[in-house]
Amino acid sequence: MPIDVELLARRLDELYAIGDRGLYDSAWATALDRVERWMKDAGLKTRRDAVGNLWGRAEGTDKGKSIVTGSHIDTVRRGGRLDGALGIVGGLTAVEALLKEQGKPRRTLEVVAICEEEGSRFSTNFWGSSAITGSIDHVPDDIAAAMRERGLNPQTVASAARDDIDTFVELHIEQGAVLEASGKPLAVVSAIVGTAHLEVVVTGRADHAGTTPMAMRHDALAGAAAMIQAIESIARSLGAPAVATVGKIRAQPDQINVVPARVVFTIDLRHSDLNGRRALEERIRSLCQTIASERSLVLELRVLQEEPPVPMHPDLRSVLASAAKELGVQASEMMSGAGHDAQVLAARCKVGMLFVPSIGGRSHCPEEATKAEDVVLGTKVLMRALQKIAY
Amino acid sequence: MPIDVELLARRLDELYAIGDRGLYDSAWATALDRVERWMKDAGLKTRRDAVGNLWGRAEGTDKGKSIVTGSHIDTVRRGGRLDGALGIVGGLTAVEALLKEQGKPRRTLEVVAICEEEGSRFSTNFWGSSAITGSIDHVPDDIAAAMRERGLNPQTVASAARDDIDTFVELHIEQGAVLEASGKPLAVVSAIVGTAHLEVVVTGRADHAGTTPMAMRHDALAGAAAMIQAIESIARSLGAPAVATVGKIRAQPDQINVVPARVVFTIDLRHSDLNGRRALEERIRSLCQTIASERSLVLELRVLQEEPPVPMHPDLRSVLASAAKELGVQASEMMSGAGHDAQVLAARCKVGMLFVPSIGGRSHCPEEATKAEDVVLGTKVLMRALQKIAY
Repeated sequence: MPIDVELLARRLDELYAIGDRGLYDSAWATALDRVERWMKDAGLKTRRDAVGNLWGRAEGTDKGKSIVTGSHIDTVRRGGRLDGALGIVGGLTAVEALLKEQGKPRRTLEVVAICEEEGSRFSTNFWGSSAITGSIDHVPDDIAAAMRERGLNPQTVASAARDDIDTFVELHIEQGAVLEASGKPLAVVSAIVGTAHLEVVVTGRADHAGTTPMAMRHDALAGAAAMIQAIESIARSLGAPAVATVGKIRAQPDQINVVPARVVFTIDLRHSDLNGRRALEERIRSLCQTIASERSLVLELRVLQEEPPVPMHPDLRSVLASAAKELGVQASEMMSGAGHDAQVLAARCKVGMLFVPSIGGRSHCPEEATKAEDVVLGTKVLMRALQKIAY
Repeated sequence: MPIDVELLARRLDELYAIGDRGLYDSAWATALDRVERWMKDAGLKTRRDAVGNLWGRAEGTDKGKSIVTGSHIDTVRRGGRLDGALGIVGGLTAVEALLKEQGKPRRTLEVVAICEEEGSRFSTNFWGSSAITGSIDHVPDDIAAAMRERGLNPQTVASAARDDIDTFVELHIEQGAVLEASGKPLAVVSAIVGTAHLEVVVTGRADHAGTTPMAMRHDALAGAAAMIQAIESIARSLGAPAVATVGKIRAQPDQINVVPARVVFTIDLRHSDLNGRRALEERIRSLCQTIASERSLVLELRVLQEEPPVPMHPDLRSVLASAAKELGVQASEMMSGAGHDAQVLAARCKVGMLFVPSIGGRSHCPEEATKAEDVVLGTKVLMRALQKIAY
């Protein structure tokens, strides 16, 4: 399986050198131009759709829906070298090698650079894949203005929708430390986790920190601290794949010498199984309520956002596992704890994902890295899988 | 003991109607003019010192240092009717009644409206009492500008220092719910609590909320929550007069889907006994360190501010208790959990304080209230005590 290992690394370096890429900003535009040039170099026919997703196409000999690989071009602020970029560069490099070695495919092969996934600039995410699935109802004003600056017409977003994709397969870094800890260089993703975001409001009573004895207090922060402890204990005791995270917290009135009257905090809950996540949420709700009652605090808990887990298509799980095996690697299977474009595209086509390890689990930061040999292996396995599907 | 009960209430209402009074703002100036008029009506000779403390003086027949009563004229934002105002209005009404009933005092009697105690406008507090004790080294630029607007010269603050005060006695609301719970209408303050303010920084590691299993985390907020719980438990188990409050908290990076890397929170620790407070602090430090070590978190703990407890003068405790007894009331003794001008003035003179109950413990808010009969009783006991000292 000859792929151009140096080209692969150089392209990743070039994209990283462009810097952080927010949707429709100038670095984003530079990166997209660069990828388009590479696509053309690889012999692909390129086009941009209404939201700025970039497509490179190698027509197949058979009629029929496309086999697509790729990932998102945007990055978080102070992001790393591989998140999104690996799926585009690895996918392109794999398709380029296939075209060179195997010639015209039986089924149409496409590489896509999806315009946005990260919420990199606006309060949206999955912007590009949502356009592909035809699920953008409304273009917010700030995004519309930015689109116009890039010569895109916000009124035509519906035209980006596609119903002619058969399969989307995405190579991505794990963004966690599970693969590294397991010693495996590769994993086939079984499902993308379902996430619920909750907001918890704990209301007690503001009191003077000096004049109010401990027994007379209704301290919202002390109550919230007990809840945060309980949330951690529940997730720990359930064990993987359940995780629960309290990431944001605010106390009011936020004064050093006043007992907090009100605390707002968030919970991020994830599980690969919807019933599992609901059970986790139920236990957390119940224990928080008990703590609030014991302390005469008022508890309000509301769901900000809820996404079900998305299983990867069994055909693709098996093709990816076979491809790995043919290259002498026993891939593990794992859940993705992070969200990915594949979960959105699953509404319209078969989806599959391949993970390579993140060193130290670092991601969304300049330290984000994967061993060069694992980057190459992931690309080769992707190439073999695309060959099995498209040739 | 005839005092003008209606006048007392009307004056409190008039000051409250002026609204929130920040140091040197226009409401503050209006209130000070009003109090000055009342002082003159009472037959006192008035003057303002370099920082705007307002003094009303009734010369005694004997030479010697003054007996002073009063409190601060400034208020917190959205403050109440009594904090500070009661000490000025009650003190003035008591002195007015004494002059009317008993004539010229043996010792010089003064009523003071102290310009600032609350940190009501600038990042200072005890501004007025610090000027009286000669302990202002430097006038910050913003305060200097505000002083000039009121016709005060910031270069002359040293001239406000006094070494001719023998006694300062202050009537104040409790600002807590201890007196109300005890059923007593009055307390003699034994000491003003010593306060330490600490800042705690807990450092862990930012991780993706979806891709990082619970066991692989170094969650700074989960650790901080365990510490906040421990702080509350320690203060509860030590019991009164120990109190500990976590009032402010910040998590970083403060994102719903990122495990917090760093949490900063504050601790307000109070105790009437310096050794007691140090023991409380020591136990908190030790338990926080244990929690940090168990969770592989880094703990930094620094003292932001530390004030020793200030005992009230035994002579005044006994005079105030006798005065109450003579009016048929067995006053309780209690520690003040809040800070007061008396604690600063204690460096230069004998100090004493009298508390009346706060309904529901409410203070620093519009709901701040004391039963009318308790306001009258407090004023009468103050009057009797001033009579015993100055006549």
